[in-house]
Amino acid sequence: MDMTRQKKQEEPVQHSAPNTPNPTCQDWSQVLPQLLRAGQGETILNLLPSAIHELNNAINTVLGFADLLQSEPSISKTLKEDLKAIERAGLRARELLGALRSLASGVPAQLQLAPVDLKEICEQACSLMAAAFRRNYIQLVTDYSKETPIIISDASRLRFVFLALLQNACDAIALKGEGGKISVRTGRDQFGNAVISVEDDGVGLNPDVHSKLFEPFVTDKLDGKRAGLGLFLVNRFVTELQGGVEITSSETGTKVTLTLPSLEALV
Amino acid sequence: MDMTRQKKQEEPVQHSAPNTPNPTCQDWSQVLPQLLRAGQGETILNLLPSAIHELNNAINTVLGFADLLQSEPSISKTLKEDLKAIERAGLRARELLGALRSLASGVPAQLQLAPVDLKEICEQACSLMAAAFRRNYIQLVTDYSKETPIIISDASRLRFVFLALLQNACDAIALKGEGGKISVRTGRDQFGNAVISVEDDGVGLNPDVHSKLFEPFVTDKLDGKRAGLGLFLVNRFVTELQGGVEITSSETGTKVTLTLPSLEALV
Repeated sequence: MDMTRQKKQEEPVQHSAPNTPNPTCQDWSQVLPQLLRAGQGETILNLLPSAIHELNNAINTVLGFADLLQSEPSISKTLKEDLKAIERAGLRARELLGALRSLASGVPAQLQLAPVDLKEICEQACSLMAAAFRRNYIQLVTDYSKETPIIISDASRLRFVFLALLQNACDAIALKGEGGKISVRTGRDQFGNAVISVEDDGVGLNPDVHSKLFEPFVTDKLDGKRAGLGLFLVNRFVTELQGGVEITSSETGTKVTLTLPSLEALV
Repeated sequence: MDMTRQKKQEEPVQHSAPNTPNPTCQDWSQVLPQLLRAGQGETILNLLPSAIHELNNAINTVLGFADLLQSEPSISKTLKEDLKAIERAGLRARELLGALRSLASGVPAQLQLAPVDLKEICEQACSLMAAAFRRNYIQLVTDYSKETPIIISDASRLRFVFLALLQNACDAIALKGEGGKISVRTGRDQFGNAVISVEDDGVGLNPDVHSKLFEPFVTDKLDGKRAGLGLFLVNRFVTELQGGVEITSSETGTKVTLTLPSLEALV
């Protein structure tokens, strides 16, 4: 201990970049745990394309050899079944990596408008969250109405929106600690807009944060486990997509409803 | 378009949570692209434990059946080689998932001090970044001196520190656009402290940001591709670990040197 301190006194480590206050903000220390969590998130996001690429190479090798072996005439029917099990697992891994890859490049600054199938985006998000749902004894109930319009929107933004809403719902049920239910619904309103709702029977929103839910760094979890950027992101992206966010919450749960303009409503 | 607007006039979407300004900050809009990037990062980080769990299940199935098939007496030597290739790919995927899993739970609020092998942590970080290095024609040179002390430190923090440094180095070379070299070195100083450096021959730091490198949201990339939390995180974590950060940068590259107290230096 002494040696280290001595060293610091003798030849202090130079900070070429002193930590001068940022002009936009008076005091970062009030949101320090959230900033550190967000910094970890950024590091992971930056890393993800490379990590997914490496994983995909491995899975492609698995699938290539599993395919090759199945076509061997000397392989018995029983062994072929085993190879099919390898193939199915490989395809499942490839599907998960594909869902992750569509997130890994992040959201482009400009809107990328194209027809969007909301059911597909919801299902992909739910698939990635499957293990978290199981671990927290969460039953997922989905109702994708056939009336749901195909909308012209930005899929990359909506993927993050759904994930953030599912994560909040999952967190709220995890806090209750006795399992629960998440209901995901898509449909259309009387004006032709798409309506998507994510409802949970978790602990409900803390009234203290209710008035500032869409601000950055607002979270109940001050242990550094959340950065509190979820609803900030949701609100921002949905607003960019000319939609609206409605949140109702009580002690018995929270429901977030998004309204997104459809092609029909736009023309 | 009209219908959507009309809808908004008739029955405005209720924001139960109006976006009142955060008392700690005057104006988030100045760091909006960075906040949105950080929000995406948080969403991915929250998702990662679940996604890794699902991927791991798939890989375990692959490895289980590959093992089973290899023990079949009817399998020829050639086919066994193919099964071994499946097994190797599966083990590579498991290794990558293991490295990701050690990041996915994030950094605990309290320091978790234990003996840390810096070489192991560096190698894991480099392995996860391998595809990014290849894509940017980056040669990685490592020099883990045998003199490097085992330090008592917090591995979960150091994993993020190395990744953030490697990502900055990779970004600086990518900006140059002609490939380059990253040198990672570990060693010990005369006081017994561990010294780690990450050096790149990329574009060098923008002098505009040089005076505030350790602040959050400082980045050259204002297209929303980076949140600018990397060096903020590095500085914060290294300071928590009683170490120091030194940054030197010129037009021909950047070198970041960390000093971390070793067990030897502490006693």
